[in-house]
Amino acid sequence: MTLTTFDLIGVAVFAISGALAAGRKELDLLGVVVLATVTAIGGGTLRDVLLDRHPLFWIENGTYFIVIIVSALGTVLYVRLWSPPMNALLIADALGLALFALSGAQVAEGANCPLLVVVFLGTATGVAGGVLRDVMVAQIPLILRQEIYATAAIMGIVLYKILHSCGLAAGPSFYIGIATTALLRLLAIQRKWRLPSFRVL
Amino acid sequence: MTLTTFDLIGVAVFAISGALAAGRKELDLLGVVVLATVTAIGGGTLRDVLLDRHPLFWIENGTYFIVIIVSALGTVLYVRLWSPPMNALLIADALGLALFALSGAQVAEGANCPLLVVVFLGTATGVAGGVLRDVMVAQIPLILRQEIYATAAIMGIVLYKILHSCGLAAGPSFYIGIATTALLRLLAIQRKWRLPSFRVL
Amino acid sequence: MTLTTFDLIGVAVFAISGALAAGRKELDLLGVVVLATVTAIGGGTLRDVLLDRHPLFWIENGTYFIVIIVSALGTVLYVRLWSPPMNALLIADALGLALFALSGAQVAEGANCPLLVVVFLGTATGVAGGVLRDVMVAQIPLILRQEIYATAAIMGIVLYKILHSCGLAAGPSFYIGIATTALLRLLAIQRKWRLPSFRVL
Repeated sequence: MTLTTFDLIGVAVFAISGALAAGRKELDLLGVVVLATVTAIGGGTLRDVLLDRHPLFWIENGTYFIVIIVSALGTVLYVRLWSPPMNALLIADALGLALFALSGAQVAEGANCPLLVVVFLGTATGVAGGVLRDVMVAQIPLILRQEIYATAAIMGIVLYKILHSCGLAAGPSFYIGIATTALLRLLAIQRKWRLPSFRVL
Repeated sequence: MTLTTFDLIGVAVFAISGALAAGRKELDLLGVVVLATVTAIGGGTLRDVLLDRHPLFWIENGTYFIVIIVSALGTVLYVRLWSPPMNALLIADALGLALFALSGAQVAEGANCPLLVVVFLGTATGVAGGVLRDVMVAQIPLILRQEIYATAAIMGIVLYKILHSCGLAAGPSFYIGIATTALLRLLAIQRKWRLPSFRVL
Repeated sequence: MTLTTFDLIGVAVFAISGALAAGRKELDLLGVVVLATVTAIGGGTLRDVLLDRHPLFWIENGTYFIVIIVSALGTVLYVRLWSPPMNALLIADALGLALFALSGAQVAEGANCPLLVVVFLGTATGVAGGVLRDVMVAQIPLILRQEIYATAAIMGIVLYKILHSCGLAAGPSFYIGIATTALLRLLAIQRKWRLPSFRVL
């Protein structure tokens, strides 16, 4: 799969998470599509604006909007007909986080950024869509809940870099990075895993 | 009227809405001007950054800041001397939404974006200033209330595109689009119109 | 000291303020670093994106991330071993505000922006990191509290411009501007100074 394919899947799962978040606030149908769009393209747009990559991926290629609209309205239809799977929003968010974190890291690598910048830009690409979604519906961003979140993105990216620099091909390293981020996040939700937290009174 | 004239009027009405929102939080006078500025230039700035149009309209042309300062301080003076008209914030917001949504769509057209991107960029240009304003004063963004909001912007833009592609000149199609968005939004406020909403428990 | 040195000090103090804000929400260690990073680079990134200065300062130069990580983890360590000084977050925020406001103004001057744009861009550079930090931890942004905040940035920048245009060299004018903004903000906190505020019911 090419990077664009991963971007499309990431866009679709974040669009679903945006539609579900919109449903919790009872937005109207076009509001659902708007929130799904912002969630879906937020991370990649931040990545491309920061790296000055123009035209932006969704301006160049109309496919992204079709994928978003189909995902958002499909989510509405699904929820109307059946009930949404438990934690559907959290699962879609975890997949989007993993896909965008790794694709963001790979784009930053391609722009010859230093290692720490690759890790930061990948993490920012992964979390930005969800942060925008949560801020726009006035929820506390998932990144602030105490389970592992940005940490899962960082660990997936770091593992990808380690495997790749140890000689594993870019492709498998990339898949393992995505799987690591998604699994870490999902396990963290299910088992309420936390890292040691820092507290100031 | 040229596009710049519409931008100036949009900037003025959004500056008024920003000043009124600042007044609800009792900011000091310079804070009022800062919030009015962010609200007024937010949408157009997002549009230009996403389309990579530099220098930004307000960096190039100092007139915008003078219009914003006069609008913001004029609002303060007006409210001190008389009481503000009922729903003044909502009315200024509706006009700004309509002017920026249509001007954003026209700029995106000029950059040869595909249709769905024109609709999205226009809508984003229309709503961004108000979202920034509401997030900065920690209010739930108007886009999330259940009356028609982003929907009004989308409908005005779509009507403009339909009329224009059916042979009506760009000018009148543009005015009709603006009037449609503003009227839809104002009627939605007054009559509490809603589209069918989507709910997830 | 060059502009980069000021940027580095500003990045360090904003990173500390971000780490302290993260501590109030009990984020995990990597979350602390992420929030410190966003706070530290937010203002300068906004400045550079708006002025189309690429590559961004922190993409070009890996030192910024090292400074941020050391500042954030140093803050965690310090708070674990001793208790944080009273109002540490407010003091770090005031210094970051002053440093970034003046450096933002100087960069905007270098890009030949008109006077009002210099004042606005400097102020935006100064306040953006703190606003992002507060929005991400779902706190009411400091800019909205009623003590002097954006006003302190504006006054420091205006004083710098006046002194410089009256013949004082750029260097001393710049230092006096920074000191003015930081002192005004700290005195405003300590003595609860307010400008006349504007109120709409």
